[in-house]
Amino acid sequence: MNTQPRVPASLSCSCCQRELPDHQPLWSCPSCEGLLEVRLDLSPLAALPHDERLMVVRGDPGERGLWRFRAVLPVDSDDPVSMGEGDTPVVHLRVLGERLGLPHLYAKLEFFSPTASFKDRGTTAMVTKAREVGVRRLVEDSSGNAGASIAAYCARAGIEASIYVPQSAPAAKKAQIAFYGAEVVPIGGTRDDVTEAAMGRCRLDGAYYGSHNWNPFFLEGTKTFAYEVAEQFDYNPPEHIVVPVGNGSLFLGSWRGFGELKELGLLERLPKMHVAQATGCMPIVDALERELERTEVIPTFPTVAGGISIGRPSRGQMIVSAARSSGGSGAAAPDQDILRFQRDLATLEGIFCEPTSATAFAVLPRLLQQGAIRSEDRVLVAVTGMGLKDTSVLEVTPAT
Amino acid sequence: MNTQPRVPASLSCSCCQRELPDHQPLWSCPSCEGLLEVRLDLSPLAALPHDERLMVVRGDPGERGLWRFRAVLPVDSDDPVSMGEGDTPVVHLRVLGERLGLPHLYAKLEFFSPTASFKDRGTTAMVTKAREVGVRRLVEDSSGNAGASIAAYCARAGIEASIYVPQSAPAAKKAQIAFYGAEVVPIGGTRDDVTEAAMGRCRLDGAYYGSHNWNPFFLEGTKTFAYEVAEQFDYNPPEHIVVPVGNGSLFLGSWRGFGELKELGLLERLPKMHVAQATGCMPIVDALERELERTEVIPTFPTVAGGISIGRPSRGQMIVSAARSSGGSGAAAPDQDILRFQRDLATLEGIFCEPTSATAFAVLPRLLQQGAIRSEDRVLVAVTGMGLKDTSVLEVTPAT
Repeated sequence: MNTQPRVPASLSCSCCQRELPDHQPLWSCPSCEGLLEVRLDLSPLAALPHDERLMVVRGDPGERGLWRFRAVLPVDSDDPVSMGEGDTPVVHLRVLGERLGLPHLYAKLEFFSPTASFKDRGTTAMVTKAREVGVRRLVEDSSGNAGASIAAYCARAGIEASIYVPQSAPAAKKAQIAFYGAEVVPIGGTRDDVTEAAMGRCRLDGAYYGSHNWNPFFLEGTKTFAYEVAEQFDYNPPEHIVVPVGNGSLFLGSWRGFGELKELGLLERLPKMHVAQATGCMPIVDALERELERTEVIPTFPTVAGGISIGRPSRGQMIVSAARSSGGSGAAAPDQDILRFQRDLATLEGIFCEPTSATAFAVLPRLLQQGAIRSEDRVLVAVTGMGLKDTSVLEVTPAT
Repeated sequence: MNTQPRVPASLSCSCCQRELPDHQPLWSCPSCEGLLEVRLDLSPLAALPHDERLMVVRGDPGERGLWRFRAVLPVDSDDPVSMGEGDTPVVHLRVLGERLGLPHLYAKLEFFSPTASFKDRGTTAMVTKAREVGVRRLVEDSSGNAGASIAAYCARAGIEASIYVPQSAPAAKKAQIAFYGAEVVPIGGTRDDVTEAAMGRCRLDGAYYGSHNWNPFFLEGTKTFAYEVAEQFDYNPPEHIVVPVGNGSLFLGSWRGFGELKELGLLERLPKMHVAQATGCMPIVDALERELERTEVIPTFPTVAGGISIGRPSRGQMIVSAARSSGGSGAAAPDQDILRFQRDLATLEGIFCEPTSATAFAVLPRLLQQGAIRSEDRVLVAVTGMGLKDTSVLEVTPAT
């Protein structure tokens, strides 16, 4: 493994702007409890000649996985808590693309990953950082992909994990988290009550709140999505990236990554980033459509896209702002469209994704119709999680 | 994509030795119905100077996935039926290894794959070949990982697939195969009756028998496991490879791959290949222990390692012979050990595999005890399928 000096980093509060060092187990601003952001100093890297800069950013071409991007990761890259995550493939969707009138439609298969979802990108960075700053006990609230991912990486890191889940979460999901040896703590009430209980535990007993929504190092991991896309498209990325968005950790990480690549002079143009949500729970799309500054609390309904059923995303304002800055937009699809696209993706392209991921395909006709994307454009969709993550659809689909 | 002349190949019957061309949709010997083998002519490649030979074999270092090994794949590599399979990571199992007294224990995570099992390696090669020789309808018999994999790749290739499954196969497995649009044909009786029915269909209506056990191009795909391992260990492969074995498609493919690398002068030494089976169904281990030439039909019992519960493997003799030639051995583990290791792998290393895969870890203490492997040796275990493939274990494991 090729070691090199770490990129200089600090933390800053997104609310009161206080600057903080990055070598303490902080998970919120000690002054105002605001969300923390990582600030990187890319100037030493940006000062290198172009070819050298590109070589340092890409890492060893013979190495596989996202840790080859260690030059831009502000964490202990000499001994990461890793299971080979990253370097997921991009495949051309010829048949589905032609049917939609999008001949240049691509999918990035994020479920090629230790726990079969993109969450592992963020988790490997966050748990590596947590171990680096001496964390022994970590608390997270999630009943889905993030919970399983964090339980897995904490097991590997030897960190005790407590995962707070809604009382109503499916037994199989809770059992999967517990299988990794994590403590599963069911909490009654709303989704917000679960978050509050998890934070309360951390305030009470000093555990680290290793939340995929709150922790800024999570986004440092998910930003590698952008570094890979840039490389896979020879530094001329697709005009459009479409991402299913709940708390937006892949969306925001990618936007961050593309921004860094532009700052480093490796991209001339940023892709337009589009938000896909289910009509049952669409606070971001609502804010984009109504041209609001931030998300509002709107009515939500149960949806098959469980992974993005987040009524009050903690970084809602940032997501709205990122989509808008990129020139992107948002669109929502009803459950019947999501399920139809999930099925089409399997029967036409051989890809079995979870309904949450299918949402990003289900909004494509609407984005086309709105003129947000054009038929001749290249469009890349993030396939965030595997179909086996949520097999309830198999129960309702009769075997032929 | 870097195109290059295809490696010269033909088919030969493993029974009557008849030589046949490789550009017809043959699935068994037209003279004696014997199993066909692929014969490659590696001599043009072997004649290149060492560095050039290595470069041609490895392919473009910037490319990801097993199709970069196209120099040794006798199929249409210009337009493969591919979803980015291959290039799976190797991770060091520090904690489990120390507990076992094997500090150099590694896992290759084969479930980083479109359908979450190693089967996709074989399927991408076989279905690409099938499309190349004009196959429109393909029949396979499998209720498990191979069935899902072949259904997925046939969907992508636009080939009609019929998957014959035991009447008793779990509904969820049948539903997954059907989700890709494949025809699911349940057959009563024994596992052999299912195979017979599938073959009968092909004889009757001219469909192609695209069986992961019978089709020789399947092994051409699985052999890329060896090419990756060689590269990941800098052409000094681990002393031991341990593989869970049912029909042995990964075992035989790997052995073939390592043999080719030696023939090409890129390896000085072959690894010892060890067969892992469940005590409930251990025909190969039995033949190895009793020093038989071929497997015998011995009593079998239900086991949690469903993916390797094959009482009469079609290439049994070849597996026995490969294990013996390599200097390897075989060992079996009871279900309770398999389940314990499945759990240990999750809680100590963060890896959730299916019970079938855990079998290869569960036999390690026995292999150590027998002196087949030594504590200081490097041991690589193939983690063949993801835990989400078989979640019955989550139902019996109480959530803490």
